Amino acid sequence: MSKIGITGLSDLDQKCVQTIRFLSMDGIQAANSGHPGMPMGMAAAAYSLWTRHLRFNPADPSWINRDRFILSAGHGSMLLYSLLHLCGFDLPLSELKQFRQWGSKTPGHPEFGHTPGVEATTGPLGQGLSNGVGMAIAQKYLAARYNRDGLEVFDYRIYVIAGDGCMQEGISSEASSLAGHLGLDNLIVIYDDNQITIDGKTELSFSEDVSARYRAYGWNVIAVDGDGHNIAEFDKALEQAKNPNGRPTMIKFRSRIGFGSPNFQDTATAHGAPLGVDECKLIKKNAGWDPEQTFVVPADVAESMGRAKQKGTRLQSEYKALFERYAKQFPAQAKEIEDALAGRISVDLQSLLPKFETGSSVATRQASGKTLDALMPHLPLVIGGSADLTPSNNTRFKGVEDFQKNNLSGRYMRYGVREHAMAAIMNGMAVSGLIRPYGGTFMVFSDYMRGALRVACLSNYPTIFVFTHDTIGLGEDGPTHQPVEHLAALRALPNLLVIRPADANETAQAWKYTLEHRDHPIALALTRQGIPVLDQAQYASSENLVKGAYVLIKDDKPDVLLLAAGSEVALALEARKILAAEGIKTQVVSMPCWELFEKQSKTYKESVLPPSITARVGVEAGVRLGWDRWIGTQGEFVGMSTYGVSAPYKVCYKNFGITPEAVAAAAKTSLAKKNL
Amino acid sequence: MSKIGITGLSDLDQKCVQTIRFLSMDGIQAANSGHPGMPMGMAAAAYSLWTRHLRFNPADPSWINRDRFILSAGHGSMLLYSLLHLCGFDLPLSELKQFRQWGSKTPGHPEFGHTPGVEATTGPLGQGLSNGVGMAIAQKYLAARYNRDGLEVFDYRIYVIAGDGCMQEGISSEASSLAGHLGLDNLIVIYDDNQITIDGKTELSFSEDVSARYRAYGWNVIAVDGDGHNIAEFDKALEQAKNPNGRPTMIKFRSRIGFGSPNFQDTATAHGAPLGVDECKLIKKNAGWDPEQTFVVPADVAESMGRAKQKGTRLQSEYKALFERYAKQFPAQAKEIEDALAGRISVDLQSLLPKFETGSSVATRQASGKTLDALMPHLPLVIGGSADLTPSNNTRFKGVEDFQKNNLSGRYMRYGVREHAMAAIMNGMAVSGLIRPYGGTFMVFSDYMRGALRVACLSNYPTIFVFTHDTIGLGEDGPTHQPVEHLAALRALPNLLVIRPADANETAQAWKYTLEHRDHPIALALTRQGIPVLDQAQYASSENLVKGAYVLIKDDKPDVLLLAAGSEVALALEARKILAAEGIKTQVVSMPCWELFEKQSKTYKESVLPPSITARVGVEAGVRLGWDRWIGTQGEFVGMSTYGVSAPYKVCYKNFGITPEAVAAAAKTSLAKKNL
Repeated sequence: MSKIGITGLSDLDQKCVQTIRFLSMDGIQAANSGHPGMPMGMAAAAYSLWTRHLRFNPADPSWINRDRFILSAGHGSMLLYSLLHLCGFDLPLSELKQFRQWGSKTPGHPEFGHTPGVEATTGPLGQGLSNGVGMAIAQKYLAARYNRDGLEVFDYRIYVIAGDGCMQEGISSEASSLAGHLGLDNLIVIYDDNQITIDGKTELSFSEDVSARYRAYGWNVIAVDGDGHNIAEFDKALEQAKNPNGRPTMIKFRSRIGFGSPNFQDTATAHGAPLGVDECKLIKKNAGWDPEQTFVVPADVAESMGRAKQKGTRLQSEYKALFERYAKQFPAQAKEIEDALAGRISVDLQSLLPKFETGSSVATRQASGKTLDALMPHLPLVIGGSADLTPSNNTRFKGVEDFQKNNLSGRYMRYGVREHAMAAIMNGMAVSGLIRPYGGTFMVFSDYMRGALRVACLSNYPTIFVFTHDTIGLGEDGPTHQPVEHLAALRALPNLLVIRPADANETAQAWKYTLEHRDHPIALALTRQGIPVLDQAQYASSENLVKGAYVLIKDDKPDVLLLAAGSEVALALEARKILAAEGIKTQVVSMPCWELFEKQSKTYKESVLPPSITARVGVEAGVRLGWDRWIGTQGEFVGMSTYGVSAPYKVCYKNFGITPEAVAAAAKTSLAKKNL
Repeated sequence: MSKIGITGLSDLDQKCVQTIRFLSMDGIQAANSGHPGMPMGMAAAAYSLWTRHLRFNPADPSWINRDRFILSAGHGSMLLYSLLHLCGFDLPLSELKQFRQWGSKTPGHPEFGHTPGVEATTGPLGQGLSNGVGMAIAQKYLAARYNRDGLEVFDYRIYVIAGDGCMQEGISSEASSLAGHLGLDNLIVIYDDNQITIDGKTELSFSEDVSARYRAYGWNVIAVDGDGHNIAEFDKALEQAKNPNGRPTMIKFRSRIGFGSPNFQDTATAHGAPLGVDECKLIKKNAGWDPEQTFVVPADVAESMGRAKQKGTRLQSEYKALFERYAKQFPAQAKEIEDALAGRISVDLQSLLPKFETGSSVATRQASGKTLDALMPHLPLVIGGSADLTPSNNTRFKGVEDFQKNNLSGRYMRYGVREHAMAAIMNGMAVSGLIRPYGGTFMVFSDYMRGALRVACLSNYPTIFVFTHDTIGLGEDGPTHQPVEHLAALRALPNLLVIRPADANETAQAWKYTLEHRDHPIALALTRQGIPVLDQAQYASSENLVKGAYVLIKDDKPDVLLLAAGSEVALALEARKILAAEGIKTQVVSMPCWELFEKQSKTYKESVLPPSITARVGVEAGVRLGWDRWIGTQGEFVGMSTYGVSAPYKVCYKNFGITPEAVAAAAKTSLAKKNL
């Protein structure tokens, strides 16, 4: 085997690097699909990072004090899979051979929860880096809350490899600015500066001074020049970065995309397509490897890299001993950590929930705020925040302090006007396994964070999205701020529970449900405007919220179903009175969460929506999309079909025809269809 | 009246500034809703900008060579409305008194197309600044294409006022980085550095060095310190910025939010709520104005600021003379400009469309690329681009050159990996009235641009979004890249036409329709994978696309309707064969555009979807949301209910059960319901 001249690496180390390269290349070639350029360019750096710096235990990928590694440039997934395999994670070579195939553990982009050792789902660019900021916040908070002198039970770091695409995405700018503000010196980002993207050279569109930009954010920036093989310098940079200095570090690492490929190195061709069988052979031949063999792991490489298992076992057993000492001295804290890991809540949330008085008018965002005031003192690992709409979102509970550089045990995040980063940062906190994050913004700005929202849904991160100002009911701010399509767009996302409570008590129940369920993300849709608190004696209990939809009140043998969610439930109840006066019998249904309703039994569903009653009205101050499922072919819909208007909210409701009178009229229209 | 000590402004100028402040304050107080802090802090700067620098004609807000002004900090709308009124735009004082009321021309945030002189819809932060980058690109392109020595028919500039929120949003980072790369020295951004956001002081979350960051982007940055009254320096900064130097300019202007308010200046309270009647009186009293009067425009102020009308008339008549000289010397160019302004296309697109051979397999993204190759040479004011997915989106047509700093007549944009900025930049180009932009990315990344997409829909910008890789049909890249919910989420947006062609010929027709209609945005949903070109002899003509949905083929007295869009239409046609073999008669409908179909006559709609045929199957490799509208209560849906899987696309379709066999089976299930 010829040497490749990597500074700071032994011959065997270099052989390990080549093995990583060739496994990656072979996996992509076998799939005939994938991104070989990045793994080939970054193999040496990643090798050094994983074998010399990262602390982890392949036998227990969920060890809570492991360092976190995120491949933000997720298209380079084969690099990660090769490392995981060689370091002894439960990812056999057979899985690498099944790269990008149905049922394999090696999908095209890394997926959290799917492959052992994958810390975050990446691929959509900028997400991973921003998750890293969230993980760094989580570590800082856990350390501040739990570490004691000599008993640092949380002292891990977060390492990210990000590419040119990550640097260009706005989400990274938002997250990096906040990371600098918060002085997250446990975060180390390695920027794979290979100067190539899909369109060609980065100079086509990206000529900014990335280092200067990161310094402007308050980061420590270290440049490592060369061809991706200046590992001596890279190691020095990592040592410097690990030395806490009150700033996150970016190592700008010049690499060569497709390194070693005679025909494709330094070209966009190497980025996103297999190199071809001939080129693979040529690369191996030039490197002194047998060109005819694929998926080769030399015995000395296997042994050398396999030592990560012994090291990991040692690290974790040392940690276990440390934690036992900790648990003896600080049993309450240890229990808190263990409860959190097991997903146990040590208090009875139901008994803590505020009760709201019938007849009063309470915005559900206010009810949400009061519920948080009541619950949050008992939930030390739930971290709140808002993207600079704190007084509007009612997300900051009584007595809480801000999380800041000089107050790392604060548990309220000031995310700034950075919705997308907020969502991705929350995702990063949520995958820590200990922290449960919630964050607020106006529902209309769920658009700004949809990239991260989707990753939460795809990977079932237990992130909590608090969306206030959920309809034209926000009034004067006008159509730029009035959501109309957002409920539909959110409901379109598989795995997301969208909960839109009908009043203050349903809101309290929504929080209870949310905090007790952490197997998926949840979005709460809350009103700006005051709405009636429904009489819990007259109507069905708000505890029925867990069923997703339930009958609030019904006449015997109803003629028509009135279906509504959120602030429009009160309108449906008013419409019921109008119809009753005309002798029309109704069944009024509150539908706070369609996704939960879909999961109920057929019998239950048919009790709420009896198939025989085809006269139906759906009421929601949003678009119709999705409602036809509930109202059927003879149903009517009262809602929005255009964007809103800047005006006081009562005027908006009236002029858009979302009123009890309109609902009653629609009921009669629907009844008339039935009688045709 | 006491003087307020503004450097560089006369006593009368200062009185004008106070008038702007008090009109803004009074409008907000009358509405009892709005954002007074920004107008009060920025009144002096905005006054100088509008009266001394901006070139416009109040009598003709659409004069093509006007300078553009964008209030990216759109919540400060009353500042803009006050200026428009005082400068003589068609916005009477009565409209200012109706701020934020139903039917007024003064909505809470500026809306393009609603208020004369408003150049872009703003409010969602960062959009306006990014629109400005698009407008600057449009100006550079128009100048490069049309200007001749001494006949600069396009020499306007773009001015933006942006706030702390704009600076924090990632979209601004993306757009500003690209603006620096392109050297857009016709763009001047005034950063209202008031150091206050809704949550409080910006230091809560935003401590980066904004000037250094913008210098890193390649911008010219000028800081003007003080209290918002250092207008002498501000004017100097503007003069410097107007002097072309190959870089966009940011003027970092320190202002005081809520200036002049004894109790609320420099506080978050001043940001987003009326100051209160008492405070308004106090402010006026302190300024030597009658505290009891509201909406006062002193006669000398009216006269002085009203001179903008004469100036505007003069500027435009000079321009008219210039353009007449231009038209004489360059009649072809002048005609091109006039055609574009009138929305005329001078060629017959239908005759230019490529024809695709029956029986071949063509990805609709490829068909799109071929169509662009054929049409674009004839459409010099259509500008293409992609967010770094050019080879995948097939957006770069033959022979085109890139738009770059040194090649401003290029008409292909390299947006970089910046989807959100791309959309907002396209919006900025689209409102120029002359340019029609299209830009590509993967459909899954429509999430990243949704904030800007929504503004396009709300304001009916004729932006064209090219979304390729529209289903699990993209295969191996996996669920992070496979859209499943996006078609539903896009269809939820009012005003957006989502066109999902069934084959190559429908794709050509989709482009024809798109280019001929510029009263709203359009999203094209295109496949990665090859799909059959449908036989135009056997099936109905693809020209029916304009109806949104049409019968491709039908049996006499069909038993069941098979409804499909895009790549799934071919599956429905295969299912038809299976069913035919079993004696079941079908009517197969292609539904490329639901929104166009909704606009058809009842008669037509019932011919496509006869109410009497309740056995129906909807087929789409996306979520069901929305499909119930078409399939009714007895219909079945064949599609996705989860996220996808990384695997070859044929395996995905098969394993997710989206096959002709599954469609045929679903048809029988639906038929069985009917027979119950």
